[in-house]
Amino acid sequence: MKKHNFSAGPAILPQEVIEGAAKAVLELDDIGLSLIEISHRSNEFKTIMEEACYLSLKLLGLEGKGYKALFLQGGASLQFIMTAYNLLENKAGYINSGTWSTKAIKEAKMLGEVIEVASSKDANFNYIPKGFEVPKDLDYLHLTTNNTIFGTQYKILPDTEVPLVADMSSDIFSRPFNYSKFDMFYAGAQKNMGPSGVTLVVIKESSFNKVSRVIPSMLNYEIQSNAESMFNTPPVFPVYTVLLNLRWITNNGGLDGVGAKNQKKASLIYDEIDRNPLFEGFARSVDRSNMNATFNLKNDKQAEVFDSLWNNANISGLKGHRSVGGYRASIYNALPIESVKVLVDCMQELERIA
Amino acid sequence: MKKHNFSAGPAILPQEVIEGAAKAVLELDDIGLSLIEISHRSNEFKTIMEEACYLSLKLLGLEGKGYKALFLQGGASLQFIMTAYNLLENKAGYINSGTWSTKAIKEAKMLGEVIEVASSKDANFNYIPKGFEVPKDLDYLHLTTNNTIFGTQYKILPDTEVPLVADMSSDIFSRPFNYSKFDMFYAGAQKNMGPSGVTLVVIKESSFNKVSRVIPSMLNYEIQSNAESMFNTPPVFPVYTVLLNLRWITNNGGLDGVGAKNQKKASLIYDEIDRNPLFEGFARSVDRSNMNATFNLKNDKQAEVFDSLWNNANISGLKGHRSVGGYRASIYNALPIESVKVLVDCMQELERIA
Repeated sequence: MKKHNFSAGPAILPQEVIEGAAKAVLELDDIGLSLIEISHRSNEFKTIMEEACYLSLKLLGLEGKGYKALFLQGGASLQFIMTAYNLLENKAGYINSGTWSTKAIKEAKMLGEVIEVASSKDANFNYIPKGFEVPKDLDYLHLTTNNTIFGTQYKILPDTEVPLVADMSSDIFSRPFNYSKFDMFYAGAQKNMGPSGVTLVVIKESSFNKVSRVIPSMLNYEIQSNAESMFNTPPVFPVYTVLLNLRWITNNGGLDGVGAKNQKKASLIYDEIDRNPLFEGFARSVDRSNMNATFNLKNDKQAEVFDSLWNNANISGLKGHRSVGGYRASIYNALPIESVKVLVDCMQELERIA
Repeated sequence: MKKHNFSAGPAILPQEVIEGAAKAVLELDDIGLSLIEISHRSNEFKTIMEEACYLSLKLLGLEGKGYKALFLQGGASLQFIMTAYNLLENKAGYINSGTWSTKAIKEAKMLGEVIEVASSKDANFNYIPKGFEVPKDLDYLHLTTNNTIFGTQYKILPDTEVPLVADMSSDIFSRPFNYSKFDMFYAGAQKNMGPSGVTLVVIKESSFNKVSRVIPSMLNYEIQSNAESMFNTPPVFPVYTVLLNLRWITNNGGLDGVGAKNQKKASLIYDEIDRNPLFEGFARSVDRSNMNATFNLKNDKQAEVFDSLWNNANISGLKGHRSVGGYRASIYNALPIESVKVLVDCMQELERIA
């Protein structure tokens, strides 16, 4: 029996995407070969890569607006250093809103001057920093649109003329958003996009050639762009599975469609967290993430009973990250609202029997 | 109907590996979740990663000898710069035996002094350089054990006390070899190991901390090693498929077993190239690769007939790389000897009808 998968990532994918990916591993489109044993230079794979890039920009509303979509390896963690390699000439600003922002700052500092423009570390990152001044002399301002671990998410972007760069690993393709406000953003695939092992980078072509340093070829956005994401062998299976998922999003109303469903799921779980006297939310209400709902039991002694309730309800992946404790319900695109209802039932059942 | 897949990479994999990978995408080991939607921190995946690392070292005869096996992203191309980042302090030597060696040299030069100790560029890389002196003051000597494009392969290693580093992307796990002579070697998975999207690095633990520069975390072997290849989210599907393939190699006699079969396949195709008056080999006989047999028609006008012969025989992936032209039969571990026989039949048929 299929579990209710609340995993923070790698995360649940639509069942038709999983079935399509498995079928292609056996044989791709009746060509007599498995997806994973064809050349990446074959027409079959070139078509896959082109459609994945095209659908990415189209869904994000960035088609024909001077952006390139790249599918690279290494996850957001490699982007932390690639961002700085390609864009940090004099000084970069970072907003520190959690564990991954902190890591991005650490890596960028290896290559140049980095200032922390704002931080929510003072409250264990339970809010998104606001009301700060952004210096005008920055090469770019980096932020993390959704903080998977702490369950916070940007609703409004900082007001600045400085180029914006973002890690969108855990909320890309989950909502309509001002994507065109960014000069560059990136996202590991393993939340709303596909399996782990591939990273989407969306970058304005005007962002190439911004620095004087020599950039290793694999870390150079312009080289990767000129090679159409095939400077070397790309991760064929992850890219194909992402493509299936981008088609699924397109067929489910695009970002408006999935965004509306995600809003409903988020309301359902947050309403229960606020209503149920046994629970409390971790993140400040105004900054709550529509992707990762973090919450705690007010009384830790009820954890054993609650854990057995949701385990018996066939829920998996609900344990909170060690930095926060408690629980985290990751409610990415592919999670059905029925799974959220099962979780809410468990929370209400705890209230009844406690 | 399944094709005879002579692709240079991504390349043919054993049918049972393909079926096992497809099954796990649908559901992993009856756990109620797909392989591609489980957390990489789950016990299921930790066990997969541990077994893949263990089997790698065991098959290579390096278990308990001070080596670590790492599964990273970015392919051999990212290793070109990682090698230099981690090991190049004063001066490194490179043997230039082809396109990929040339690229490795180019990247390493960005970080320090690099000398080309020997090269076979004078003859379009149709041989492995020999009989040269290796300077004693090198941080390491880098070589490419098998040159996929040109069809050459090292049979004997250079005689030197300098630490050896190798790109083994296209012949790792294909034969018994002096793996313990190397301080470090790496290989993209997509030839003998698995699907694209993961790279094996095998490194002596004594090779950590060899340089004074600051190394970005994702490019730091010691950090990746301390994190057991999970500094960030690893490419779950490629790693799992590699594991299935390592089990297949183990169950097929290990490197002795697959090496003997590869030798038979290579003899079959090279014997025909040498016997058949219409063909000639590209690489010098003594340096011929047991993985990629490169050959040409003596008379280009016969290409059309030959191409239709092998196409009709359901062969794919036989076209030579543009740097060499002609044909390249990649005969990796998973290619059955029957496929080689079908190719030899086509060559003999051409001789009959020409």
